[in-house]
Amino acid sequence: MKLKIKDIDISSGGPLIAVMNRGDAALLDLHVMDRIKIKRGKKIETVVLDIAESDEIIPKGKIGVFEEVIRSIKLKNNDEVKIIPARKPLSLDFIKKKLDGYELSKKEINQIVWDIVHNKLSAVELTYFVAACYMHVMSSRETILLTKAMVEHGDTLNIARYPIIDKHCIGGIPGNRTTLIVVPIIAAAGYTMPKTSSRSITSPAGTADTMEVLANVTFPLKKMKEIIMKTNACIVWGGSLNLAPADDKIIAVERPLEIDAESQLLASIMAKKHSVSSTHILIDIPGGKDAKVKSKNAALKLKTEFEKIGKKLKKHIRVIITDGNQPIGNGIGPALEARDVLWLLKRDPRKPIDLEKKCLMMCARIFEMIGIKDGYKKSLEILDSGKAYSKMIEIIKAQGGKEIAAEDIKIGKYSYDIISKKSGISKNIDNQVISRISRIAGAPHDKGAGLYLYKHVGDKIKKGDKLFTIYSESKHEFAFAVEFAKTNNGFVVS
Amino acid sequence: MKLKIKDIDISSGGPLIAVMNRGDAALLDLHVMDRIKIKRGKKIETVVLDIAESDEIIPKGKIGVFEEVIRSIKLKNNDEVKIIPARKPLSLDFIKKKLDGYELSKKEINQIVWDIVHNKLSAVELTYFVAACYMHVMSSRETILLTKAMVEHGDTLNIARYPIIDKHCIGGIPGNRTTLIVVPIIAAAGYTMPKTSSRSITSPAGTADTMEVLANVTFPLKKMKEIIMKTNACIVWGGSLNLAPADDKIIAVERPLEIDAESQLLASIMAKKHSVSSTHILIDIPGGKDAKVKSKNAALKLKTEFEKIGKKLKKHIRVIITDGNQPIGNGIGPALEARDVLWLLKRDPRKPIDLEKKCLMMCARIFEMIGIKDGYKKSLEILDSGKAYSKMIEIIKAQGGKEIAAEDIKIGKYSYDIISKKSGISKNIDNQVISRISRIAGAPHDKGAGLYLYKHVGDKIKKGDKLFTIYSESKHEFAFAVEFAKTNNGFVVS
Repeated sequence: MKLKIKDIDISSGGPLIAVMNRGDAALLDLHVMDRIKIKRGKKIETVVLDIAESDEIIPKGKIGVFEEVIRSIKLKNNDEVKIIPARKPLSLDFIKKKLDGYELSKKEINQIVWDIVHNKLSAVELTYFVAACYMHVMSSRETILLTKAMVEHGDTLNIARYPIIDKHCIGGIPGNRTTLIVVPIIAAAGYTMPKTSSRSITSPAGTADTMEVLANVTFPLKKMKEIIMKTNACIVWGGSLNLAPADDKIIAVERPLEIDAESQLLASIMAKKHSVSSTHILIDIPGGKDAKVKSKNAALKLKTEFEKIGKKLKKHIRVIITDGNQPIGNGIGPALEARDVLWLLKRDPRKPIDLEKKCLMMCARIFEMIGIKDGYKKSLEILDSGKAYSKMIEIIKAQGGKEIAAEDIKIGKYSYDIISKKSGISKNIDNQVISRISRIAGAPHDKGAGLYLYKHVGDKIKKGDKLFTIYSESKHEFAFAVEFAKTNNGFVVS
Repeated sequence: MKLKIKDIDISSGGPLIAVMNRGDAALLDLHVMDRIKIKRGKKIETVVLDIAESDEIIPKGKIGVFEEVIRSIKLKNNDEVKIIPARKPLSLDFIKKKLDGYELSKKEINQIVWDIVHNKLSAVELTYFVAACYMHVMSSRETILLTKAMVEHGDTLNIARYPIIDKHCIGGIPGNRTTLIVVPIIAAAGYTMPKTSSRSITSPAGTADTMEVLANVTFPLKKMKEIIMKTNACIVWGGSLNLAPADDKIIAVERPLEIDAESQLLASIMAKKHSVSSTHILIDIPGGKDAKVKSKNAALKLKTEFEKIGKKLKKHIRVIITDGNQPIGNGIGPALEARDVLWLLKRDPRKPIDLEKKCLMMCARIFEMIGIKDGYKKSLEILDSGKAYSKMIEIIKAQGGKEIAAEDIKIGKYSYDIISKKSGISKNIDNQVISRISRIAGAPHDKGAGLYLYKHVGDKIKKGDKLFTIYSESKHEFAFAVEFAKTNNGFVVS
């Protein structure tokens, strides 16, 4: 059957989807979510079928295609294409199998991951897979197979060095920019650390957003390798690389119900680490009522799982459970966090003490893993000697940035101080409220937006003391953030 | 925030969805699948949020809306609307709870069904609910609550009569138009039978499609009631009524994985019956390798569940397990089936014997349920006396049709005989192949399309005998169907 393209000018957010007229679909006995091949010249792509409810939207003789299809076979309006009915992806049978509680084989997991990576599954179909893995928790064997399949169906970084060090934090804590301190310390000590980081999804800044204040973070894999060979390390955005791409698509359908299928969380993290050939990995699980992991028990269970999977993947894993009850560092938002980092590395008295302590402890654990004693002391020496700072500048330059003084980092021009209306002790700081104010102020899309904390939990506070300053780059967003903070500033003082 | 409407001219297929620009969404700290209220004048609607990947699709200041939203608040391009962030539906917490294996309360099931009916859930969210109920099978208590909630959030037919008789077939068998025979027999005997039927989804004809050859099937509830009060019965399309509307939305996300969550199947059928106040219900489960229910054991298990739920809903339920290994009746496709029905009711020698036998047995079971003996004989008398035929004409006329001779029903003008190339016994007829040929020929959208079977399983066949004739209304579709049937006619002769 030949049809003419109608560009419906919207993105599906992943899956390759085309929409046919009811009559045309009937002719080929096709139904919603069947698969068809669209052929134009030598280009061919299998897509998920939707059927229009009215002839007005897709008239007979037309086929509507979402942006992903337009891009995949380079189509334009009114191009004539050939439509051929196709089989449904094999992985649907395997997803059904998992839904029925059976363990999946290597071949089956591979097929599912392949279909995910190549956008062959609809959102509904992918959701069934995620739900199945959530309810019938994957065995360690399956988790390892999933990890390996995610790595296999993506690019990998191969560097002939040993050890290759990595770290990962389970997230959810504002500030907490440990990567930008730990990586230069470890690299300055002569070890390799090919760090890929994420951008923010729901937080005021991801590590990649903060690093971007100082240098570029988007590189092809080849360039990333060059940076590492030159400086021992890198701090780049993982999202621009094609490392374990299935993972991001799975995370997207987990979000609406805030599902963390444990097996998927493990596979997701381990796949990203495995794909850059890491041999020694430090995992940070911050625990706290607003953190991702809420109880000590849940944290310990996750720790055991990480150690088990790590062992089977022949990786050295060290898991630390840390305090996730309040923000770490003073600046929240990309530029404010980057300023903290430079102050800390430059040994400026304005450095955030809590962040420094946590980073030194993390470096100590990393050094222990590779058999080096007195890691805490050694790391402090590297900091105090200025070697960590020099290494950071080296990395920044290799990533296309230049040396900049902390004071020269541009912070939002609109500012407003939030003042305590009570005296007492700071009993609690709500991570989610702090995140929300920073985000409304413009973080992370406006790098200079966010807030700067003057107080942490346990500090004495007098009525009239500044709790934090809100910074914003736009008057409009500024007003929103100040209004929000006035009704709820996240501090409990008593 | 004020934004201007961009009509994105496509239907989501159910959920109310709007698409914002990334920057605008950031300003309100909104993420994909968050909820927003769209306000225009006094009209307001809560919708699911999507975020455009590029500014080209939805520029800043614009908000894209799918057809469902356009219809719900009567919007047009460039209308200015107010956007207010809204809470996510409560039912997401309850879906998560079910996913975690907990039993749901009445209030929780009610909320979920309300949100489904009002299009408040995205397809991904609804899928989690279906997957949860599939894996953590609902208790009888939950199934009953789901059934009642489905009825409550929809219209109901109230008729002050007793008994009210109903029937349902689990489907999957081509032909098998028992409703059009059973309803007039039962109504002619003086009993009430308010029958709602479905249109075809994947079959060559649904009961509603076949009835539509003889009369209208689309009526508002009030008119349906009038027809019943006048004739004791009706045979109308359930899809145009708002009876248990949640059900259709659930079925739509079950289809891609061909999931039949047992609890949902039960709730779905019982809700449709409950909503028309049925008191005595006959359930037909055809079993067979191509049928929906494939094994005797599965059929027996389903039977027990129906009986259990029926008892709790205070309904008389009778479940029969029938042979689903081959098509029932000779005509396949709306007009060809309607012709069979008229021949049978008019006692024409061309009547399909297998269909008559099955219908008489079903009527006998129904009569038993309401305490009437010799139901088979009684039903045959009603048929032979012409009372069933007269009643059918009465119903047809009440539904806006008129009496027509079977011969005057318009059958597709293109026809082609499929001939046996072998002599022997007809060992098997593949339901799915027969369906597919009929659909490709144009059924059900072309009423006259389909095929007419000359042979059933067990019949002697000589080389050169006609197995069936394909009928089609369009030359184009005819050619496709003949080509398909030449490679596979579904008969095993040996």
